[in-house]
Parts: sequence; C-alpha cells; structure tokens
Amino acid sequence: MDSALLSPVRAGAPTEGALSDAAWVQAMLDAEAALARAQARLGTVPEGAARTISACARADRFDLAALAERAREAANPVVALVEELTAVVAAEDPRAAEYVHRGSTSQDILDTGAMLVARRTLEPVVADLDRTAAALAGHAERHRGTVMAARTLGQHAVPTVFGLRAAGWLTGVLDARRRIAALLDGGLPVQLGGAAGTLAGYVEYLRLESPAADPGAYAERLTQTFAAELGLAVPVLPWHTLRTPLGDLAAALAGTAGALGKFALDVQTLARTELAEVAEPAVAGRGRSSAMPQKRNPVLATLIRSVSLQVPSLVAVLYQCAVAEDERPAGAWHAEWQPLRETLRLVGGAAHTAAELAEGLVVDAARMRENLAHSGSLPVAERLAAALTPALGRAGAQSAVREAALAPGADLTTALHGLDPRLLEPEGYLGAAPALVDRALRHYRHSY
Amino acid sequence: MDSALLSPVRAGAPTEGALSDAAWVQAMLDAEAALARAQARLGTVPEGAARTISACARADRFDLAALAERAREAANPVVALVEELTAVVAAEDPRAAEYVHRGSTSQDILDTGAMLVARRTLEPVVADLDRTAAALAGHAERHRGTVMAARTLGQHAVPTVFGLRAAGWLTGVLDARRRIAALLDGGLPVQLGGAAGTLAGYVEYLRLESPAADPGAYAERLTQTFAAELGLAVPVLPWHTLRTPLGDLAAALAGTAGALGKFALDVQTLARTELAEVAEPAVAGRGRSSAMPQKRNPVLATLIRSVSLQVPSLVAVLYQCAVAEDERPAGAWHAEWQPLRETLRLVGGAAHTAAELAEGLVVDAARMRENLAHSGSLPVAERLAAALTPALGRAGAQSAVREAALAPGADLTTALHGLDPRLLEPEGYLGAAPALVDRALRHYRHSY
Amino acid sequence: MDSALLSPVRAGAPTEGALSDAAWVQAMLDAEAALARAQARLGTVPEGAARTISACARADRFDLAALAERAREAANPVVALVEELTAVVAAEDPRAAEYVHRGSTSQDILDTGAMLVARRTLEPVVADLDRTAAALAGHAERHRGTVMAARTLGQHAVPTVFGLRAAGWLTGVLDARRRIAALLDGGLPVQLGGAAGTLAGYVEYLRLESPAADPGAYAERLTQTFAAELGLAVPVLPWHTLRTPLGDLAAALAGTAGALGKFALDVQTLARTELAEVAEPAVAGRGRSSAMPQKRNPVLATLIRSVSLQVPSLVAVLYQCAVAEDERPAGAWHAEWQPLRETLRLVGGAAHTAAELAEGLVVDAARMRENLAHSGSLPVAERLAAALTPALGRAGAQSAVREAALAPGADLTTALHGLDPRLLEPEGYLGAAPALVDRALRHYRHSY
Amino acid sequence: MDSALLSPVRAGAPTEGALSDAAWVQAMLDAEAALARAQARLGTVPEGAARTISACARADRFDLAALAERAREAANPVVALVEELTAVVAAEDPRAAEYVHRGSTSQDILDTGAMLVARRTLEPVVADLDRTAAALAGHAERHRGTVMAARTLGQHAVPTVFGLRAAGWLTGVLDARRRIAALLDGGLPVQLGGAAGTLAGYVEYLRLESPAADPGAYAERLTQTFAAELGLAVPVLPWHTLRTPLGDLAAALAGTAGALGKFALDVQTLARTELAEVAEPAVAGRGRSSAMPQKRNPVLATLIRSVSLQVPSLVAVLYQCAVAEDERPAGAWHAEWQPLRETLRLVGGAAHTAAELAEGLVVDAARMRENLAHSGSLPVAERLAAALTPALGRAGAQSAVREAALAPGADLTTALHGLDPRLLEPEGYLGAAPALVDRALRHYRHSY
Repeated sequence: MDSALLSPVRAGAPTEGALSDAAWVQAMLDAEAALARAQARLGTVPEGAARTISACARADRFDLAALAERAREAANPVVALVEELTAVVAAEDPRAAEYVHRGSTSQDILDTGAMLVARRTLEPVVADLDRTAAALAGHAERHRGTVMAARTLGQHAVPTVFGLRAAGWLTGVLDARRRIAALLDGGLPVQLGGAAGTLAGYVEYLRLESPAADPGAYAERLTQTFAAELGLAVPVLPWHTLRTPLGDLAAALAGTAGALGKFALDVQTLARTELAEVAEPAVAGRGRSSAMPQKRNPVLATLIRSVSLQVPSLVAVLYQCAVAEDERPAGAWHAEWQPLRETLRLVGGAAHTAAELAEGLVVDAARMRENLAHSGSLPVAERLAAALTPALGRAGAQSAVREAALAPGADLTTALHGLDPRLLEPEGYLGAAPALVDRALRHYRHSY
Repeated sequence: MDSALLSPVRAGAPTEGALSDAAWVQAMLDAEAALARAQARLGTVPEGAARTISACARADRFDLAALAERAREAANPVVALVEELTAVVAAEDPRAAEYVHRGSTSQDILDTGAMLVARRTLEPVVADLDRTAAALAGHAERHRGTVMAARTLGQHAVPTVFGLRAAGWLTGVLDARRRIAALLDGGLPVQLGGAAGTLAGYVEYLRLESPAADPGAYAERLTQTFAAELGLAVPVLPWHTLRTPLGDLAAALAGTAGALGKFALDVQTLARTELAEVAEPAVAGRGRSSAMPQKRNPVLATLIRSVSLQVPSLVAVLYQCAVAEDERPAGAWHAEWQPLRETLRLVGGAAHTAAELAEGLVVDAARMRENLAHSGSLPVAERLAAALTPALGRAGAQSAVREAALAPGADLTTALHGLDPRLLEPEGYLGAAPALVDRALRHYRHSY
Repeated sequence: MDSALLSPVRAGAPTEGALSDAAWVQAMLDAEAALARAQARLGTVPEGAARTISACARADRFDLAALAERAREAANPVVALVEELTAVVAAEDPRAAEYVHRGSTSQDILDTGAMLVARRTLEPVVADLDRTAAALAGHAERHRGTVMAARTLGQHAVPTVFGLRAAGWLTGVLDARRRIAALLDGGLPVQLGGAAGTLAGYVEYLRLESPAADPGAYAERLTQTFAAELGLAVPVLPWHTLRTPLGDLAAALAGTAGALGKFALDVQTLARTELAEVAEPAVAGRGRSSAMPQKRNPVLATLIRSVSLQVPSLVAVLYQCAVAEDERPAGAWHAEWQPLRETLRLVGGAAHTAAELAEGLVVDAARMRENLAHSGSLPVAERLAAALTPALGRAGAQSAVREAALAPGADLTTALHGLDPRLLEPEGYLGAAPALVDRALRHYRHSY
Repeated sequence: MDSALLSPVRAGAPTEGALSDAAWVQAMLDAEAALARAQARLGTVPEGAARTISACARADRFDLAALAERAREAANPVVALVEELTAVVAAEDPRAAEYVHRGSTSQDILDTGAMLVARRTLEPVVADLDRTAAALAGHAERHRGTVMAARTLGQHAVPTVFGLRAAGWLTGVLDARRRIAALLDGGLPVQLGGAAGTLAGYVEYLRLESPAADPGAYAERLTQTFAAELGLAVPVLPWHTLRTPLGDLAAALAGTAGALGKFALDVQTLARTELAEVAEPAVAGRGRSSAMPQKRNPVLATLIRSVSLQVPSLVAVLYQCAVAEDERPAGAWHAEWQPLRETLRLVGGAAHTAAELAEGLVVDAARMRENLAHSGSLPVAERLAAALTPALGRAGAQSAVREAALAPGADLTTALHGLDPRLLEPEGYLGAAPALVDRALRHYRHSY
C-alpha cells in the first residue's frame, strides 16, 4: 500500500488501484505477456510458450516488496522482474521460460507499462470529468439568470450571473477532458526498441530461423502486433530518448490540474464567511476542525487546491527529463517514474473530488443578490459612464462617474444627469452573460 | 531594447523583433484598432473613427519607456496605453478619440495582444524547425549506413547507425513542429469579454442605439469579427480566468525546448574530446575561450541547452497561473506576461540556433567506427547470447557471454562455442536500424 | 534599457539600476580592474598598467548592444568584453593593454561580476525590508488590541488581534532580512580559478618572473587580495562547478519572495469588497481600471504577488544548474545568468513595493469588529467547549457546542448550560495574542 | 509500506524508516504526548493523564490504513488520529482521555511532527554525508598528484589533478552538511499556536483554573516546555502561516541534492566507455542490463542523478506554499506534506548512495594520463601563449598559438619560437592544483 496519509486527496479515488505497486507490476507483466503473444503470432515464439507466459504474468504471484528492493541493483525494477517471471514460468514449463523477455530490454517493458498505467488511470479520470461537467452544466443552466457580483482583483466589478461562472468551470473541464481524450485516442504508444532502439534483439531471433528475412518489415509488424495486443498506439520510432509521449501526458495533466484548481479556488473564495454564496455539500463528519466545534471547512476544494499547487512543478520534472542523452540516459529516464505516478495520483484524486464537489455544491442565490446589493449602484458605474458619454464625452463621463463613485456615500444617482434611475439596477446590466451560458451549454452538448 | 547580454541564445534570432517592448505595444495597438474596426463593421463605431484609430495605432508614436513606468499605476500597461492612444487620436480627430477602447477592458487588449505576439513568434519558429528538420533529414539519409556505438547509461551498448540518431532528432523536431502548427491553426483565440467577461460594455453601446437588439447575437458577431480582423480564433467563452490557451502554448514550447535540448545534449556528448564523432560548424571567431587558444567550444549546443534548462520551470509558472480566482485574479494574470515572453524568446533563440547547428553539423563517420572498434566484440554480446541460446539455454548463454565479457581481455571469441566468428562483427548487428531511418524519413515527407 | 513593461513590479525600484546591462558590464569591468590591481599589489602586473586598466574600466565607454550581440560568439559576454576592454586600454597605453585579463578566464569575471551585482542589489533590498519592517512594527504596536476574526480555510475561526497578523508579517520580513544579511556578510565570494580552476594562468605569469615561487601561496594571496579589492569573500576553492553561492542566493531570494507574498495575499484578502478591513494607500491615478470608473484595485499587493508566483520556479532553475559537469559545464552555467537577474529584479521590485504598501496600509478597526460580530458567538465555540468540559466531558462538550453551532440560528447561548454569557464575548477570548505581539516586537528590536 | 519500486534510490536507505506512514504517525503521537507532559509540568493536565497518554502514543496501536482513509474527512490526518488516540487512552483510563490534544489544533501536531520527522531523517543524512566526505577526502589526498585533463564545455582544457576534482566534490558535500547541521542546531522549531495562532485554547484551560494567570507568560512557558520535551527549537511566533522553517529545509535539501548530483554527473562522465577514468565499485549482480550481458552500468550515479533532477521542482512547491493566506490556508499547507516527505526520501537515498559510491569509487590514474596524452601539447596552449607574450605581445602570442593548435596536426612545437620544449609537458602546468587540494583538506579537517 502506498498510502494517502499525507496526500488525502487521493484517498478513495478510483485511480488509486491503477497506480499501486501491484498495478505497475501488472502493467509491466502485461507488456511481457503481450510481447510473447505478438512474437508468437509472428512465429518467433511458440504459441504454447506465449500462453504459459501470459498465464504466469499475474502480479499476485510476485513478492512486490522484494522486487522494490531489487530495483536498486539495476536502477530499474525490470531486470529483477524478468528474473522472477522467468522463474515462475520455468516452474510451469522450463521450455517456455526460454522465451520470457526475448530480445527485449528494460525500457520497452517499463515505458509500455507506464503507457498502460496512464490509460488505466485516465479512463476513470475522464469518467470523473464527465460527472463534473454534467453537474456544472446543471448549475450553469439553473443559474442562467442568478445575478451576482463579478469580481476582479478581489473587488466588485460589474454584475454577472452565477451560471456564467459555472459555465466557465464547465468549459475548463471540457478543455481538460478533450486533451485527455486525445491521448486515449492514439496518444499512448507502445515502446519497442530493444537494447538501444534498433530492435536488434528481436530481429536476431527471427534471423536465427529465417536468415533472409527482412528486419525492417519484421520490426514494423512486431511493433504493430504488440500495440494491437495492448490497445496502444504505434510510434514512428522507438522513443527511448524521444519523450514526446511523456510531454503530452504532462500537458494534459497540468491542464486538468489547472482547470480543477480554478474551480476549487473559486468555491473557496465564494464560500468565505463574509461571502457565503456557495457551500460545499454537507456530509456528516466532514470538514471538522480538531479545535473548533463550529467549523465546517471547505475540505473538498482544499484537497483539490493541494493538487493544483503540486502538479505544475511535477510536470516541470517530466519536461526536464526530455533532455535525455544517447540511446538511454543515466538518470533522466529514472527520474520520470515517480513524478509521473504522483501526478497521475494527484490528478486522479482531484478529478474524483471535483465530481463530488460539483454534484453537491450548494448555491445561495439570495446571498449572491444581497452581496451585490451591498455595493449599491457601483457595479454599474461602467454602464452609467457609457450612457453619459454622448452628452459629456468619454473623459467627462468617466470622471463624473468616478467622482461620484469615490465620494463618501458613493452614490451614483448624483451623477445621473437626468438619466433614468433604472439604469442603475444591477440586474439590467448583464451584457451577454445569459447568452454566453447558452453558448457554453451548446458547446458542452456538442462535445460528446 | 531588451538585450540578450545574459541570454546570448536569443541574439540575432528572428523572433526577437516579435518580442520587444515595441512589438508587444504594437500587438496591443493592433488589438485596439481591430476592435474599433470590428465595431465599425457592426455599426457601433463610425467607420471614420475606426480608420483614424487604426492609423494612429503605431508603436512608434508612443514613448515606450514612459508606458513601462506607468504600467505600475494599474499593475498592467493597458490603462496607460489607452490614455496615450486616446491622446494621439484626439490630436488627429477629437471625435474619433471617443471611440478608442470602447466598451473594452485591459485584459481583452493584453491577452489578444499576447496571442498576436505568440503567432508572430511561432511563425519564424516553425520556419526554423523546418530548416532544422530538413537538415536532420539530410543527415539521416546520408548516414543510413554509418555504423556507430549506441550508448546507454554512458556505456557502449550495441551497434547502431548515426542515421538513426539523426532520424530520432528529426522525429522530435517534427513532434514539436506539429504541436506548434496546431496552435497556429486555431489554437490562439482573441480575448473579448469586457470588464468581467459578460461583454456588457460592448453591448451597452449597441443598446444605446438599438435598445431592442439581442446582446448575445451581438456579442457573438463582435467576437467573430474581431477574430477575423486579426486572424485569431474564436473562443467558446471569454477566457479571462480560463487559461487553456496559455497552457497549450506552454505545452508546445516545453515540447520544443525538450526536443531541441535532446539534440543539443547529444551533439555535446558526441563532440567530447574523447568521442569527437561530431563537431559544430567551424565559424571564424566562434567558440573561443578567453583563456585557451586551442579551444573550439560547442557553443551552439551550449546555447540551446541553456534554453532547455530554463523552459520547464518557466512553463510551471504558466501552469500555476491557471489557478485564477473570480473574474480576474490579483496576481496570477500579472505573473504570466514576463515568463511567457521569456519562454518565447528562449524557444525562438533555440530554434534558430538549432537550424544553424543542424545545417552545419560535421559528422566524422571514420571516428564513429573507430570508437566502436575500441569496444571490440563487446557490443554484440547480446547477439552472441541469442545465438548461443538454442544450445545453452537463455541463462546459460547469458552467463557464458557475461563471463567472457567481464573477464580480463574481454574477448567474446572465447565464448563462440564453435559459432561463426563473423557473428561478432558489429556492422552485422544493426537490427532494423536502417529500415527505421527509412520509416522516419517517410514520416518526415508525409508531415508536409 | 531592459524595461518593466511586462513586469511592472520592477518599475522605479532602486534595484533596477543595479541590474541593467550597463550595471552587469560595469560589475564585470570592476572585476577586471580589481584583478589587475591585485596582481599589481603582488608584483605581477605593473602599477601603471593596473591604474590605466582601472581608469578604462567604465561601462559608458563600451557599446552595450554590440557586446550583447557578440556574447553569442563564445556563448558568454566576457570574451568580447575583454577584446573591447583591451582595445580601449590600448588606445590609452598599448603596454598596459598587455595586462588586461592576465591569466584569467571568462567565468572568473562573470561569476565575480554576478556576486558584485548581487551585493549591489541586496543592499537596497535590505533597506526596503527595513522600511517594511518598521512600518509593520508600527501596525503591530498600534493594533495590539484591535480585535478581528482569525480565519482558517477561509472561515471565521477564533478571535485574534490585527496586531498579531501584522507581527506575523513582520517576523517573516525579519527572517528574510536575516538571511540576506548573512549573505552580505561573507556569503558572496569572488571567483578566481583561471581556465579550469587550477589558477595555472595566474601562476604562470608569476613563474615567468620568479620560477621558484610557491604557486599555492601566490594563488591564496591573489585570491585574498582580489577579494579585498572588491569587498567580497574568499572561497575555499574556485567554485566554477561548486555552486553553493548560487544556491544560497536562491534560498534567500525565495524566502524573501515568500514572506512578502504572504503579506500581499493577506492584504488582498482583507481588502476584498466584502471584508474591507484594510485598504491600500490611496494615491491619485493608481489602481484604476480601464473599464470601471469606480474601481480602486489593490495594485501594490497584486504586483507583489506576481513576484511570489514566479520566484519559486526561477529558483528551481538555479538549483537545477548546480549539477554542472567537469570543470565548466556546457549549459548549466549559461542557464543561470538570466534567471538570477530576473529573480533579483523581481525581489527588488517586491521589496520596494512592500515598503510602500506597509507604510501606507489603511486599517479599518471598526470594520474588523463588525465582520467578527457577524459571526456572533461562533468564534468562541472552542472556548465554550473548553468551559463545558469539566461538566460534560470533552466529547460531550464538543458535541453540545457543535449542535448549537450548526443548528439554524447558530446561537451558542442555547448551549451555555448556565455558564456566564460573557464567556461568549469575542474580545474576551484572545488567548496570548497581545503578548505574542509584544514578543514579536521585542524580537524586532533585538534584530538590529 | 510506501515502496521504492519506482524510486529505487531510496531502497535500503536508513532514512526510509523515518519517513514511513508509521514514522509520521509516531512523530505526531510524540507531539501529542509531549504536549500532555508539558501541560502536566505546568499544572494544567494531571501527571497521571500525561503518563497514560504518553504510554498510549505508539503508532503500532493504530490502524494506519484506516487513518489514511479518514485523513480525507478533514483534509488532514490529525483529526482522525486524535479521535483514535482518545479512544485508545480511554480504554486505559477514561479520565486521561479528557486531556488528549487539550487546547490544541491539527497544525500544531502535524507541523511539530514534521519537524521531528525532519530531524530523524537529517541525522542519518549527516552521517552519510560524513562517510561521503571522509571517502572523498581520501581520494583527494591520494590523488593530489594524479594528472588528468580538466574539461570545459566537454573539451580538454588544461591539465589538473584528480585530487582537485575530488576536493571539489568534498567541498560541496561539506557545504551541504554545514547547512543541514545548522538546521539540526536550532532550525527546527515546534509549532504551538492553537486554533489560530493565539494559543487561546491552551490558555483557556489555565484560565479555568487560575482566572488571574498571565496568558502571555503561560504561552511562552508552554512553548518552551513543549520544545524541551521534544528537543526542538522555540519559535518567535506560531508559524502556521509563516513558513520560514519549511523554506530553510527546502534550501538545505536542494543544496544537498545539487552537491551530490554534481558528484554523480562527474562520475558518469568520467566512467563513459571512451573516458573510463573512474568506475563504480563492482558488486556482483549490480549494474546489469536486461538485454546486454557485457554491461556494467553506473547505477549508483544514475540513482543519485534521478534525485537531483527531481528535488529542485519539489522544493519549488515548498517555496510556493509559503504564500499562505490568513491564519491557516486552504491548500497551501496541505500541499506541503507529500513534497516534503518525497524530498526527504530522495535526499536520504542520494546521501546513502553517495557514501557507497564515494567509498568504492575506482580511479584509473593511468587512463587519466593516457586520455590527457591524446591531446598532446594542446592543453598547455594557454601556458605557451603566456610564455610567448613577452616576445610577441599578448595578441601575437595568442594568435601564434591558436594557429598552431588549430592547424592539421595540432602540434604546438611549431610555435615554440625557441622556447624550452619542456614547457609543453602537461604535468608541468598544474598551477596551484595540488596546493588547492591541501587547502580543501585543511578546510575539511576544520569542519569538525
């Protein structure tokens, strides 16, 4: 168990299972098994051996703690895993054991395993983003006309509707979802290059049987078959030191963390004692303080923000590691694994938490109106200035309104210059806000 | 001038002009002018005013240093720029001055300007990546059969061909190019939201003339017209605090820095005194040391690496800033501008430098063969183990070869067990390397 | 001019002058001149030559733009600078020109110059931190008894005093100041190693005159004399690839950005429309919006936060560059310069802005009391639970209070169980807050 | 178990035990127990209760997995831990259970626990740095006269001695050790502020018994007693949102990662097949490839570099989190825990690995001399230029030597102009290198 004690956002997320030590080992075993089956389909490994290897490639047959210890020997866990897998297969059928990891290299297994882990993590993330999007679309629709104060630099700006705020969150979530979906649709390639990217090891076993065979054609077919076995994409070249797939993952995860972090930060802000325009779903036992009995802390948003504070820097590590020398780097590859896992964990936890937050978010429309009312007519100062412009000119209008707004009392009626006082009603100055909500909802519906 | 004194990779790059203070101010002025023209096309600004504003919107009419000083007043440069632009227009035609920045907000101008700057920077970056790709494709083609040592963790691994290394660099560059091209093709949207994302200011001027007009339809047409004027994309919603466009830019730039950094690091490694397999193009006066007359330093690769060390962290800032509260954040927006400029500068400089490096790279095929030869037959140890496997079993073969390889003398002929000694010739163990070069070159040709 | 257009926090800061291109060139020239004088004092350069070199080493005699262009040739600006300096000196006295940069290397000059720049930047930073600290101490003292709501996770927690908040800011500023002062007091060493850290070049000119001289003793004396000329520290070894001084700078700057960012974020939060407990100093023309006449944005705090969002990642670059290969790295050194300058600029701007913010901060004690009052007795829920514990046990007390607090109406008087209702007055539950203010002020006074 | 499967540098490090879930829970329990004892010493908790609480505060009495799950409820693990501890104590003595966590808050326990964990981690790190330093001092001493090529930008520069390289590593390690030692000596404070930094909860229990007691004096004594119980330092103020201690930790850890990363990168470079000047200690079963029987990979250095690539970005997270709003932030605190643990783990693993690498490093002095010899006289080009300067002037000398050096054949004897050819022997041009080794060794001896 790699516990969430100090990273509680992860606790209970559906992605946790896909990211455990057992899951990583299973993914690497899946790669080994798929490799044997692919070779079997091309005739360079006996069918029976491939079957036996596949049957033995189950993480529960391995001592994970011992594997972790032994990862140190080769600076990666694959060398030991191959030895253990060979032993397990040999116990079933010594001849089959000859075909384990045939022609292969650690990086083919670990990188392919990582892509499998990524897919298995991103699928539930997409499901949670879908839940989040659906809930936010509901808020947007329900609150298409709920007037509230828009705020810029922490100050009341102009009126808006809460539906537009929710539509913004929705749009951010859809952006994140689309970028993840693009990865799931062809952006996660198998790794297959052999010792140093030439596939020489794989080809050699072909050559031993058919000396005249075409190595290039075999390499291409083997890669395609391997990819088909695993449901992953076929890369242009082995990407041992061409780390575009990691960069693409990094980008999609950072984008998701940002979109969810924006949602969470807004919830926290609007949930402040003095604003109280939204609240987290009330759940017995949640949000308690160890000191203060009255507290109901916005813990879901807090958990999500803890993610958005960590992910950008973890992603910087992944980008840094793209600068990998030679055919395999001495460190830049090894530094990717844990940050990748941690980023997937955090984003998985944030997506799950966001779905709960979005679905349960309590919106207090009355309080929104009340808070806006406290600013009186000030949020329509821009409108008044526009309305006065024909008469006073822009500069004159601006300064007339500014003077009234910044005077003690801050009463814009003193600057009406005979205009209709209804001009100062906040609900009349929503611009295109409701129409923008509709536009975002159309975009949402077309996203599926 | 924002000089490259401490960032010499930028000196002379074609992107520098697009990133200067003058260029940023011009891009913001272009946004103001396009806004006036778009409003004119929709009838909310007189045609003549839009023409005058467009004519006045030239950076050389402004005191850039004074603007920079005044940016402090509002924490952004637009407020002062609008005042100065208004004065310049008023000097031509006081009535036209009434229509400057009509209904607008700082962020509409600055964000739209940033997208223009990004486009104007990325276009020459693509051109430099094209030059780089063409040169690397040439190296790949020429060296399809140039045998060299593949290296993993700094050690000779198996034989490969230099063409495959070059093909790898090429593939990385093409990945970067494709991601930038996607941004140029619809990924750079205008910003148009007015004071707080409702477009209320824009709509108000419509309403003053046609009280019954549909604000949503106007907002949509205005955004489309504005975008068409500038050749930028139309966003779903105003993205004042929905920073996906910045995240996408960050991702493309980080990917480019990584791909070029990998190329540069490899060049430096292969150019080490003891390896000397490649050299930078010799140019009089370049690569000198202030101390050592004999030195010819790999300065182009060094400049590129200085970029790849900085960009991931700058990109982390951009991702961090996506967590922007309310309708406009108090800091997260303001922290984006300089890191975005700096990242564009660095990537622009790296791309330009990479083109020169790729085009002039000197490859010493004889030295590659010689370095490989120093390892004798060791790089085909994997092959020998494969060949011995039918007779000795995998474990037996591995340990027979390992024993010979790690013994003093390291002579694999002692482990031949009667096999043909030609098996130990490195040039016979290239796997699919030449075919992979072909594959990458086909991919290159299909990329255009 | 390296303008602050996109980084307005820097505009007008006293540190800007110390960080311009001219200032960097001057610092490198100061290093060249000090080197010549140090050699003259040890007899390896004629006194007159050292005087001439010193007289010529003035940045205004050089074409900075041309130097920046030429920095590209050697991947650093020193090689060209030495050539230009030699020419300037030769024009005065051709024999003196023979002694320019004698025995030296680019990194000795650039690193020593960077330490001078750091000192010249940090001195005004300390002065601004002193102003900030003095102003915050004033707030702490004045508001030792100003009751306000303490807030945790955005919610009213227990009562506190504003003086304690200010004392906290003060303590953070003092922490930052102490770490910078430690750097100024012996933490900024000269660099003196010659071509590759052996000082061979310097020693060689000694040896040409006194073949029997002790190179170690000379190296030590030269380093000490050079350091004394510049007021910098003497390192244990040349630190070309031992970057502790950069790491120490990074740490001090990151700490300062964090302490000031905390202050700024608190000001923004307390200045929100709904809280309005503090306001930025009102200055004509500052804080305006380009759209909304009524706005007075907290621009000083916003500028400071734009710094605290950037500095941690810039500092990560500096730490990354400590991993520098061999005797001089091919990129890791070159990647330090601009991030170091940018970090110094940002921290310099933040410190200057913080002083203005602290000195002018407007505190609304009545509003603090009013906001707290809106929470009624809830902020003393903890106290009531403590008071009820003897009677009800801890669990019983907690749950009795929680029930009353979370019930509609949220009136703790229903849970008094006969205790004195004065227990529920917030101003009676300040704990040690005023005493902690005193403690922080004592610490402040002892810090000088 | 939080396994090292994907972070093998940690496997087997003595720090792992101090960083497990159990260790963190134990540290938090230690804080709870010490708090009870401190209160007992001041008379606000019965002695017997403090004894019982201390006896029960053992991590093995708790279900760690359940605690991790429950951490989600409050967004931190302390609330659940306090409930579980209360239950455990109540089972022993229900009256003692009343005194668990009396007056306290989650952050007092978690932050104090984190400081304990840091101390327990840093102590073995110092021990490993001491081992590393001792081994490196040995190399420096032994190789004070071992001539090798100094390399700058990957090219042979001038001669140096390997002892100076080792002395440089040593100096970096001593810098790191000193900064960690400073933390252990007063830099790790207890956290004690109660719900919101006023210590009101603690004071309240005093007040219940002695209404007239001085809260400030009690707060100060309680903090001092608590710190004394735990061997931690006394802070000026509660530092809930004044995160200097975290910044100081971050700085010390980043510095250590950088110093060790520099050592590792140099080892990898010098161990490259073509250089082969050093080798990692040969240990059976270590450094194997899953593909190539002949490989002996530099795995220890690779593991260390995987750390130095991750730590700067993790440290950036810690610095970012210093910007913490109000009396407790909603996310910035929560985002610190896992990056702090991960950084401690990585540095702990790197320090342990570095000790093994330094102690076993195999140095091939003959190969060093041989590699240098391949550059012939070029590495003394600087010296020859110096020697020719009196006759030819600096420019003339430089260009005469450059011409000879860059000509085909690169034979400096053609540029001797009658000087003694012994001038061209590399071992004669060591500058102060051996003396610098002595200086570093003196510094080493004085560091203890």
